[in-house]
This record gives sequence, structure tokens and C-alpha cells, in this order.
Amino acid sequence: MKKLHSVVFQPSGVRGQVAEGVTILDAARQLGAGLESICGGKGVCGKCKVRVEEGYFPKYHLTSSVSSVSVSGEVDIRLLSHTEFRQNYRLACQTKVHGDIVVFIPEESRKGEQVVRKEATARRINVNPAVRKYYVELTPATLHDPLGDFERLAEKLTVQYGLDGLTIDYRVLLKLADTLRRGGWKVTVSVWHGREIIDVEAGRVERGYGFAVDIGTTTVAGYLCDLNTGDVLATEAIMNPQVAYGEDVISRITHATRKKNGLRQLNRAIVEGLNQIAAAAAARAGINLDQIVDMAVVGNTCMHHLFLNINPRHLGNTPFPPVIHHSVDVKARDLGLRVGRGAYVHVLPNEAGFVGADNVGVLIAEEPHKQDKMLLIIDIGTNGELLLGNRRRLLSTSCATGPAFEGAEIRHGMRAAAGAIEKLRIDPVTKEVRFKVIGREKWNTEDASIGAKGICGSGIFDAAAQMFLAGIIDRSGRFNTGVESPRLRLNGGEPEFVIAWAHETSIGRDIVICQKDIRAIQLAKAAMYSGAKLMMKRLGIERVDGIVLAGAFGTYIDKESAAVIGLFPDCDLKDVRAVGNAAGDGARMALLDVEKRKEADLMARKVEYVELTVEPDFHREFTQALAFPHAADGFPHLAHLLPHGG
Amino acid sequence: MKKLHSVVFQPSGVRGQVAEGVTILDAARQLGAGLESICGGKGVCGKCKVRVEEGYFPKYHLTSSVSSVSVSGEVDIRLLSHTEFRQNYRLACQTKVHGDIVVFIPEESRKGEQVVRKEATARRINVNPAVRKYYVELTPATLHDPLGDFERLAEKLTVQYGLDGLTIDYRVLLKLADTLRRGGWKVTVSVWHGREIIDVEAGRVERGYGFAVDIGTTTVAGYLCDLNTGDVLATEAIMNPQVAYGEDVISRITHATRKKNGLRQLNRAIVEGLNQIAAAAAARAGINLDQIVDMAVVGNTCMHHLFLNINPRHLGNTPFPPVIHHSVDVKARDLGLRVGRGAYVHVLPNEAGFVGADNVGVLIAEEPHKQDKMLLIIDIGTNGELLLGNRRRLLSTSCATGPAFEGAEIRHGMRAAAGAIEKLRIDPVTKEVRFKVIGREKWNTEDASIGAKGICGSGIFDAAAQMFLAGIIDRSGRFNTGVESPRLRLNGGEPEFVIAWAHETSIGRDIVICQKDIRAIQLAKAAMYSGAKLMMKRLGIERVDGIVLAGAFGTYIDKESAAVIGLFPDCDLKDVRAVGNAAGDGARMALLDVEKRKEADLMARKVEYVELTVEPDFHREFTQALAFPHAADGFPHLAHLLPHGG
Repeated sequence: MKKLHSVVFQPSGVRGQVAEGVTILDAARQLGAGLESICGGKGVCGKCKVRVEEGYFPKYHLTSSVSSVSVSGEVDIRLLSHTEFRQNYRLACQTKVHGDIVVFIPEESRKGEQVVRKEATARRINVNPAVRKYYVELTPATLHDPLGDFERLAEKLTVQYGLDGLTIDYRVLLKLADTLRRGGWKVTVSVWHGREIIDVEAGRVERGYGFAVDIGTTTVAGYLCDLNTGDVLATEAIMNPQVAYGEDVISRITHATRKKNGLRQLNRAIVEGLNQIAAAAAARAGINLDQIVDMAVVGNTCMHHLFLNINPRHLGNTPFPPVIHHSVDVKARDLGLRVGRGAYVHVLPNEAGFVGADNVGVLIAEEPHKQDKMLLIIDIGTNGELLLGNRRRLLSTSCATGPAFEGAEIRHGMRAAAGAIEKLRIDPVTKEVRFKVIGREKWNTEDASIGAKGICGSGIFDAAAQMFLAGIIDRSGRFNTGVESPRLRLNGGEPEFVIAWAHETSIGRDIVICQKDIRAIQLAKAAMYSGAKLMMKRLGIERVDGIVLAGAFGTYIDKESAAVIGLFPDCDLKDVRAVGNAAGDGARMALLDVEKRKEADLMARKVEYVELTVEPDFHREFTQALAFPHAADGFPHLAHLLPHGG
Repeated sequence: MKKLHSVVFQPSGVRGQVAEGVTILDAARQLGAGLESICGGKGVCGKCKVRVEEGYFPKYHLTSSVSSVSVSGEVDIRLLSHTEFRQNYRLACQTKVHGDIVVFIPEESRKGEQVVRKEATARRINVNPAVRKYYVELTPATLHDPLGDFERLAEKLTVQYGLDGLTIDYRVLLKLADTLRRGGWKVTVSVWHGREIIDVEAGRVERGYGFAVDIGTTTVAGYLCDLNTGDVLATEAIMNPQVAYGEDVISRITHATRKKNGLRQLNRAIVEGLNQIAAAAAARAGINLDQIVDMAVVGNTCMHHLFLNINPRHLGNTPFPPVIHHSVDVKARDLGLRVGRGAYVHVLPNEAGFVGADNVGVLIAEEPHKQDKMLLIIDIGTNGELLLGNRRRLLSTSCATGPAFEGAEIRHGMRAAAGAIEKLRIDPVTKEVRFKVIGREKWNTEDASIGAKGICGSGIFDAAAQMFLAGIIDRSGRFNTGVESPRLRLNGGEPEFVIAWAHETSIGRDIVICQKDIRAIQLAKAAMYSGAKLMMKRLGIERVDGIVLAGAFGTYIDKESAAVIGLFPDCDLKDVRAVGNAAGDGARMALLDVEKRKEADLMARKVEYVELTVEPDFHREFTQALAFPHAADGFPHLAHLLPHGG
């Protein structure tokens, strides 16, 4: 067994043990220390700069055996300044851990690093993969039996495994003869859907690997799975490299449509991103990239199109039709993915122009179509995606929540990164604020130098709900200027409420919520609520039996806060579940079970897409939903919380 | 209608009319003037140099309207010397015909130009192509009907044409949205085997085009066909560009195996060759290359492997198994062929390591498996390929005839090119020789300055047969030195027979047949005969009902000469048919009729391959077959010709 070393990351205090010889970057990843790396550890970007604070480390190049970290290499020397070098700065991706160390992550290396919250959720998955491996031993050709290589192999597969009418991938055919001979006529064949040979390996190979991917507009997550057991062997996530060309779907469509080579750039960015996380996951699991013989991918319709190199132009214009709904099986190599030679990528189907394969992933993961309960599934993001129904009928819609929930258009909003206020409570009497920041164990009440940088989505939900419950804003969202608190003040005539005082921040000024922020939250939640309401009307129902918060975001928001601001119709909070990255789970299920692929194609066509903007009650519903929690609808389950009862 | 101009090519005298504006190179091709072009008219090789002898042509750059040929361009200036320029040399590929002209083709531009004898033969072909076109008019998407593009199209194709479960080529999907809108939602869809959309074109397109190819070791022929009517619209042929890497199959296998990048070079050579003839054929038919939506390819097993970029290594070593027998459907683009975006290439199946897809082409063209008559099909080439049988049973074999029939290993042997003696007769009494040369109308007896350069295959057959019938050689092939003729002489102690006197040649010395030449012919024909004989033994038959000479070569040999030297077992000469390039015809039939593809796959597996070298009687049969016409077998049908009766 490998020796373990203790590593402590500062200032977050994140700590744990890592194996001898891993890089500091990998240690940070394993322990969740939120360390920036743009190039993914290639030693190119210089962003993963850290300071090694304790442990014995040489100032000059000594042999690494006497040091707690490996000696500085060429890359460190190239990318670090002399001053940094003297101060024991190192590139985390280039530096290996050889002893117990304390590592300081400077602000700049933390900046913009989103907390990736896309771990795979434990789900019951039937393991019935599209790609299976078959081991055969062949009799070599002789002059009396000079049958060709492919036919010799195919005949054996028919006799031994009943596989009939097999074809062979063209690229695999090219290496067939050599592989057969190298393996002494003993080979393992990977067969896709029982009909195409997509790989031939010398000798006996037991394990096959697959890679399931959820391409989010912001975050891309990949799950490397064992196709025999269904186990997740490694999870990797990166920020979607397309972010460089635009934060949201609309700006990506614009880039693809208006810029020369725009589509190509976006396509290359995501494909290279996937190559990167696939390689990282493979390395972590100790396999080669080309051992990945199958892939399943979900993403919203725009991500779907860009990944497939399809121009998303028409997604941006009414009536927003996707180029294709149906699932697509395309050779990974045709997309530029460097996995197994003959591997396919299965891209899940789209429901509609704004309800993509990611929502289908959620659908097959949550299976409302197999339940009697009337389920409302909410996937919160820049676009809110909603599913409503049960085994009898299923509706979906998409509503433009805008980026408020992700921290954009909020004065001190930020993404869920280190320093973000992710949780807060306001004392209804004193109006004092308690908050917690990502990357810190303690609350501000225990540690005033908590270094808040802004407020992320879950903090924004809390802020709105708590301000409403504390009477700082009223039902209509207007500030109640009569409230006595030093935190409530006017700034240029506009009221604002201080969440964190300057001394509690790392930005040196107060973090506040202003009237405009509250309006942005209202617009976003009203879009969500009215979408759900219009679908309920379509189905003729008054209430739902359960609510599922899908998406990583849903895991981190406070259910009660969401209910109080009126993100969704009344429901017993015990029937509101956050299920994490259900889209990614759906991708994983489709990777591991061919029946799930069929189910996805079937359900994607069966779901009725509701175009909200053409619904007759759209404007009235939207307007009523602007109030906290709603201008007209009752909330019996919130009666104990709300100022005037449910 | 376009104006026509008369063009006369010298020194061959080939003449005819061509359309205004065609290049001299195209004129030469159309009229069969045998003009060299290595680069295929790209203006790169400078090999198609010709002298414009008559007609008004400007010495300096004038407007082309006053000239019988177009003005010299940049390419002429770059590739021609000043002297050549002054002497009115031009590059035929760069020069357009604008009036009546006489063109002199200098020796160097004629050299090595093989007479391409691979015209398409008229055959009854059922037109039932793999790719069919369907025209549809769609209703555009609206907010109330925002169905995606692919599904919109697929649904219409189902309703209107009953096409169900269609998939779409990935590359075609990429342009689908734009094509639909460019065509105002009226498009023509090309569907492959009723299951995959391989092209979508704006508007109504009636015609689909296919390209059938026969890749010979020496010559590559392509037939551009109308997939609606089955008509051959253009035929193009070039020397197989792989010739640069080796003349025969064995030297190509060696090149592919031993040289670094050897396989790649050979593959690129043939693929680029096909691109070249496809482009030429398309240009001639007035279509674009990308209108070719289907291809069918035959070739011997080595050509098959090299075309598919499969290493032919194992074809060169016992037991010579091919990598694959079964037909292969591969995207043309994956091979680097620049035809229609989603087009497939259908590569016909191989029978065995030495009996390739070309023989399967012959098989489905001649259909012995549908006849009661016992048919022997002979394809003469460097490898002789033989088929024997009828509807009950079918055998095939391959025999190493060596290159003697193609003029190699024969002292004055040459390929069937201008200047080759292709036909000859020897007076049994005077032993005087009459011969005809390719490219000349007259016999040597009419024109002593006939300019013979050597003897090609058909001339070699005639020489052996005529020398035998005239008693110059005996049954065992030995020269009869007792014959009184100035043409029979000793050269360094070895006897030789003069076919053409030096003054009748362009090489300035006598063209002779020597003892070694006769031995080479004997070995070649014995291989062929004994192959046929061993198959007949296997079937337990004494005689065949008919003989088919397949291959371009078979068209040009004299049946009687072939019979006299004992190329094949006794048969009434009226039952011996030359069918031309049956392999190419088979490719064409497979292109035009899917049933032929199934038949090919079925028959390729049903034919029993006979490995001659392991047959017990192989050596005895071979030895007996060395004699003219045979040491033991009778030839009743040749009784009237043979010195000692049949």
C-alpha cells in the first residue's frame, strides 16, 4: 500500500490524507479544496499557483527524497516569478506530495473556482449495457481452412454466443488481422447492441468502461462507469470551456451564428473539454482512454447541438425547433473524442427546443411516467425546466428564469465559489444576519474575518425568504423602510439591506441586497411558478403530490426558503425532494441500460411540450406569481411560517 | 448546340469531331488517341505535351477568339521550355479547341500510355438501386407545431412513402436545418437501403448518380451511372497509380508491409486515383462530384485490402487468408473519397485470399450459378482466376500465371500500348510474318515504317501459337533449328525467331521471340490449364460446355491462338466467348441492383475455393500442361488445325 500524507489547505482549512506522489492539484481535487486550474493540470495556464507553507521543502534543486514536495521543474520556473519562487510558490499541478504539508491557496488561485456539485447520486440502475465483451479462442487459418479473419471470428461468436449477422466497425477491421495474431487467436470482442463489433483486444479482457456526461451550460460533469457492475469509478467536472464564448445559452447561440468559425470554436471547446475530463477520469481509475467503449451524453438542446456541431441558429428564433429530437448514435471519433476506436456516443433525445436531453435524463432518472403520484419536477438553472405528470400524462415546459438564481443581475451575486454566502438567517426581531460562506466551517457570528465575497444562488433564496419573513420586504417585494435596523438604509435614494459588513468580507465593502435584486428574484421565481401553474391548469389539477428539485443547485437551496418565496405551488415540504444532478444520473442510466435509451426516446416524444407564451393565461399567472409567495394562491403547508398564514 | 471542330492526332492519324472548348486532352480521350497524362489534367505533370501543327494559333497572347486553340496560360509557361514554346508545344490539358486542328503527340507523350480497354459492356441490368431519391414538401414549424427538423422530415417520408424508422447520416444532419430552409421546406432526400438518409438537397432533384469501379492491379476503370435508368453516362480509366510502388500484387504487398508508410501510400494512391476518375466522369456527364450518392467497388483481394487501407500482409503468406470476405459498406468520406456527403461505398465480397471481389463481379455478371451448362470462366491476368460450375456446384481457384501474358519476362514484351504488336500471323511455308501494331491502321506488309516497339499479350499468344503451327517450335516448346528461314537464327548459341525487322520498329533493332520467352508462355498457360483441369477432376467432369474469357485482355486475344497453345481444355470455339471487363460489369450491376449485392455475398461464400497447391495431382497436371497444346489431353475441336490432329 502507498504511504499517505496529511495535506491541509489554507485558508479554507480543508484537510485530509492523500497518497504519496499525487500532485497538489490532485490532492486539492480529492479533498475538495477548490483550487483553480484552467489547463487541467497540463502546466500551461499557471493558475494553480499555491504556496507551500509547512513541511520540509528545498529552496534549491535537491533530490526529491529529502523533501515533502517534489523539486521545482521547468514548468514552475517558466510560469512563476522570481519573487514567487523565493516565497515558496509552486504550481500545484507540477508539484508532488512526498510528506505532510500545509498549502496556502492565494486568492487569485481560488477566484472563479466554482464548487462543482455534480457528484453522482446513488440510484438503482439495471446493468444492461449497449456494449458487451465476449472472449473467444479461434483456430488459426490453414491451407485447408483459409477462411478470412472476420468470418472466422464472426462464426465463432455465432456458435459460442449466438451473435448473428455481426458487422464490424471499419476502423476496427483495419487492426483485426494484427490483433488476432498478437493475441495468439485469443481475443476479446466488444459488441455494440449485439450487432456491431466496435473493438477487438488481444487476450482476455474482463472489464468494459463507459463514460456518461452531463453537459451543462456552466458545468460539465463526467462519470466513468464499469459497464459490468455499473459502479462509478471516477467523477470529473470542469467548467464548460464554452463559457469563454458566452455565459448563457443565448450568447452561445449568438456566437455560433454571428462569429466566423463560431460554431466550430464552441464545438471544439466542448469536445476538448470532454476529452480532458475523460482522460482525467480514466487516469484516476487507472485505465486507458481507449478502454472507454461507450458514452452517453445529455445536455440542454443548445449544448446538444453544439456538442454535435449542429448550428443552433434556429433554436434562437421562434418557433425554436431543434434540428433533431431523436437520440443520436454517432461514432465518438467523428466528433473528435479520443475514446475507444469504434465507440459510439449515444446522445439522448430532446423534448423540444428549450427542453433538451438533460431534461430527458431527469425524466428517465425520476420516472414520473411510472408513478401514479402527480409529480412536479423542477430543474433550476438559467432556464427553468419543468416536468409535470404521472403515468397517464406528462407535460414539460421551459421558462426563462434569467440568471438571477446563478448570481448574475444581483448586485453582489456570484457563482457558488469559495467566499460566496450560501446560507443566511435574519433574526425577525433584531434583523441581525447570520451567514455561512463556502469554504469556511464557521458562521460569521463565530468568525468575523470570514471573508465573504458575494452571495450565491442558495444565499439569494435565503435572503429573499428571510427578508420577507423578517418584514424587511413586503409581499409585493417592496422594502419596508419603517424597519428599525442599521442594516436597512438608503443608498442614493434606493433602499438596501446589508447582509455582510465590510469587515466580514474580503472585498472591503458591505454586501447588500437592494430593491433591484429583489425584483430580479421575483421575475425569476414568478417564471417558474407560473410555468408550473399553467401546466397544472392544462392537466386540470389543483395540487401536486410531490416536488422534485433536480439539478445540483436544487441540492443546495433551502426548501423552506424556496417555498416561502413561492418558487413552486403549495406542497408538504416532506414531499419536496432534492435529487442532485438527475440529468447526469439519467445519462449514467442510459449508459448502463439499453432499456433506458428506448424509454428516453419513447418518453421524449410522449411528453407534451407546453409553450407558455401562447397559453391564454400566461400574463395573468405570471403577474400574480410575482408576489411573495403568491398574490392569489393559498399555501396551507406554509401557514405556520407566513406572516398572514398560508 | 455547340459548334464542333475536327481534330486529327498525329502520328496515329486518329481523328474525329469534338465540341467547341474541350481541351486537347479531353479530345484525345474522347477519340482514343492515347495521350499520356499522369496528373489527370491538373496542369501539374507536364506529360501531356503536344505540338499544335495546323490551325491558326497565335505566337503571342491574343484573345482566344481569333485562334484555333486557347491562348497559353500560366501553366504552359511554367511547364514548357522556351524552345518548346516556340515550336508550338502546348499542354493538352490546358489548351482548348476553338477550331479545326492537327495535333502531333510526341513519342514521350505517348510512352507508357496503355490502351485502356475497359469500356462498359452492354448487359441486362435490373435497376433496383440501394439509394433512391424522394421529394417532399413540408409544412414549416410554428409555435403551435414546433416539431424538430429531422422528425418533421421523417414523418413526412413515412406518410408519403411508407419509409419507417429512418436514421440520418451524421454529416447530413449537420446541414439539414439550412437545406430545409434554403429549399423553402421542399427537399429531395436520398435514402440508402430504405433506412438511412444520406443526402438532403433543396428543391426537387430527379436524378441520382452512382459510380462503379473496377480496381485492377494495372488499370482502374470507373463507370458513372444514372441510378434511375441504369445508363452508363461516362467511363473513365487510368493506370492504377499504385504502379509507381510495384507492378504486381506481390510487390505491392511487399511495399505495404516493408516500407514505412507503405500501406498509407498505396491507399492514398488508389483513393486519389478514384477521386480523379470520378471527377473526370462527373465533369464529362455535367454533374458535380457530390451528386454521386452511391459507389460499388470490385478488385482482387489485394486491391480490395489496399483500397480499404487494410494491411494485405497476411495475403502474402500461407495460408493467405483475407481479413474479410463479406462485402463492406463504408462511408466514402471515411476512405477520403470526395463524392456525396453521406454516400457509402459498397465493396463487393472476396471469395478467398487469391480470388477477390473482382471475381465475384465476374460471377454475378456471368451467373454460372443460374445455368445448367457447365461453364469455365477464365480471367487472365498476372493471377489467373478460374470459376467452374453451374447451378449445382461452383468452384473457384487462382493460379499464378506470372506476368508473361502482360508482356513482362518476355524479351520484347510490353504492355498493350501504342507501338505494341498485338496481332501476328506466320506463313506456314515461307515463315514470313505479318503483324499489326496498336495505333496503326495498316499491317507491316503494307507499311514497313510501322514503328513496332515490342509485343503485347495478345501478340505473344499469337506468336506462340503461330510458331507452333508453322513448326518453328515443337510440342515441347523447343525450337526446330532445322527450319529454313532468315528469321530463325542463333544468338549467343540460343535460337530466336525474328518477328519484326529493325526497320519495321521504332527501337532500331529486331524484335524477336527467344527460347526463354516460349518457356515463360508455357509456364503461364500450364498454370491456367492445370487449374481448370484440377477443378474439372474435383467435379468429376471430362469436358466443359462453354468457356468465358473475362477481363479486357480476353477480348483482345485470338481465341484460336489461345486454344492452340492450350490455355484451356478442349471446347468448341463457338462456345468460347470473350465478355470484356466482366468484373467491372459486376460492379456496375451491384451498384444498380441491391439484389445483386445479396447474390454476391451469398455466392462468394457458396463458391468452393480450390487451393491448387494442395491438390494431389497438381504437379503431374502442371507438367503435362506445359506441352502445346497438352501432353496427354485430346483436342477434337482443334483437329483441323493441329499438326498431328486433335
